[in-house]
Amino acid sequence: MDTLAKAMSKFRLAVVQLHVSKVKADNLSRAQKLVKEAAGQGAKVVVLPECFNSPYGTSFFPEYAERIPGESTQLLSEAAKENAVYLVGGSIPEEDGGKLYNTCPVFGPDGTLLLKHRKIHLVDIDIPGKIRFQEAETLSPGSSFSVFDTPFCKVGVGICYDMRFAELAQIYTKRGCQLLVYPGAFNMTTGPAHWELLQKGRAVDNQVYVAAASTARDETASYVAWGHSSVVSPWGEVISQAGTEETVVYADIDLQYLSDVRQQIPISSQRRSDLYSVTAVQEG
Amino acid sequence: MDTLAKAMSKFRLAVVQLHVSKVKADNLSRAQKLVKEAAGQGAKVVVLPECFNSPYGTSFFPEYAERIPGESTQLLSEAAKENAVYLVGGSIPEEDGGKLYNTCPVFGPDGTLLLKHRKIHLVDIDIPGKIRFQEAETLSPGSSFSVFDTPFCKVGVGICYDMRFAELAQIYTKRGCQLLVYPGAFNMTTGPAHWELLQKGRAVDNQVYVAAASTARDETASYVAWGHSSVVSPWGEVISQAGTEETVVYADIDLQYLSDVRQQIPISSQRRSDLYSVTAVQEG
Repeated sequence: MDTLAKAMSKFRLAVVQLHVSKVKADNLSRAQKLVKEAAGQGAKVVVLPECFNSPYGTSFFPEYAERIPGESTQLLSEAAKENAVYLVGGSIPEEDGGKLYNTCPVFGPDGTLLLKHRKIHLVDIDIPGKIRFQEAETLSPGSSFSVFDTPFCKVGVGICYDMRFAELAQIYTKRGCQLLVYPGAFNMTTGPAHWELLQKGRAVDNQVYVAAASTARDETASYVAWGHSSVVSPWGEVISQAGTEETVVYADIDLQYLSDVRQQIPISSQRRSDLYSVTAVQEG
Repeated sequence: MDTLAKAMSKFRLAVVQLHVSKVKADNLSRAQKLVKEAAGQGAKVVVLPECFNSPYGTSFFPEYAERIPGESTQLLSEAAKENAVYLVGGSIPEEDGGKLYNTCPVFGPDGTLLLKHRKIHLVDIDIPGKIRFQEAETLSPGSSFSVFDTPFCKVGVGICYDMRFAELAQIYTKRGCQLLVYPGAFNMTTGPAHWELLQKGRAVDNQVYVAAASTARDETASYVAWGHSSVVSPWGEVISQAGTEETVVYADIDLQYLSDVRQQIPISSQRRSDLYSVTAVQEG
């Protein structure tokens, strides 16, 4: 491996576990501050949580929704540029053509909007006595796969409940992603049961790094997030994890290690394409 | 639900964590004894571990290989019939047409051979300083999906390393399986890292029960098995797990509970078939 390739095989990832209040301006300024803090620690890719500018709840989405570009994405673009980072902008309620989406905008280190991922799978859970949440009450689903390039590796983007669908991760991996990022906000029922397990599963099945950014836990909110933002290695180990408070966690992504894991257990080359396949049917 | 349907929605599963020695006759008689023990405890489906009649190792396979029908499968057929159980006969090295396979024979409660699953994905691992194992040194892979019917539910069969490939479980689930069984024998490196995680991942991603049967640990063997035979619920919880010794673990499979989980988090109906699909390309 030459020197440049070696330099490009490692980079620092930051996952921001943001506290989200009802005051949008506060949410934005704290996000801005923590992106800067992360960059100061050497992060080249920074991930914010789902619904970082608005409380999470179908009744809040119409009120906090913005067009893209708009106030929140303008701020994210500037934060990406000022800190020269790839910024996975969690998600915001997006308004477009009279519909609302749960949308993750991604910015390059020059401030350009690289893509926006509209949550493909809307939350639809009803666990009696525990939690009921139906995003479709106010949101519409997206229909696009979302992959962006960095000088380090390709990155696939999903939002929260998207993580439950193995196919999305499989298609991103087929397209060459070595890192999958999921801004999210699991709750106090599904969080302890599935948040870490799903990340580990996606990581081991696809031999990729997986990062999931949650909002900080706020017991006074109508929707209480589990927290525990994490980064998982291609071997399935949690290499970095937050508790429940607002914080930034870091992980040094090592693509040579990923390559070693893929060589040690070569499932990617052993898949039986003569027997089965996972394919993208169409793209929006 | 009528009375019959209710009765059929629950059944006891037994997973036999067999000690395997170099003496085939001993392995067979212990297997026979433990199948009987399991049936005595009310098990209707019994699962043996991978390579239950032979030490696990490419050098042993040619020596212990049998045709089907042969000595080992004859004994399994009788054990299934005598105890009136569905018997997932772990696996044996099978000889057919000059080739060797790692084959799981499944018998119905009347002793009929319902199917044989030849391991589709052959182990190919090389973790420096830890373990190297290449089944292809002596084995050939199978090319069939393997699903059998019971009065309770459909059951999908994979062997050990097959568990690493999410697609197999996805296709079995699409075909209506509610229980996946994996006779296996992970080792002391991949066992602690991935054995339980893979089972939980398959269970949660597909909302099915997953059972994995390992051989007991034998520190004197050339290949030391991890043990920890397990049954995992559709919610991703380990509901039954062995330690390292020879034993039988039981789980009461509850298909109404499975149905409840699928209703609470309806990912099966939420899959975006307009965007992606997992399909069987051909069947052997």
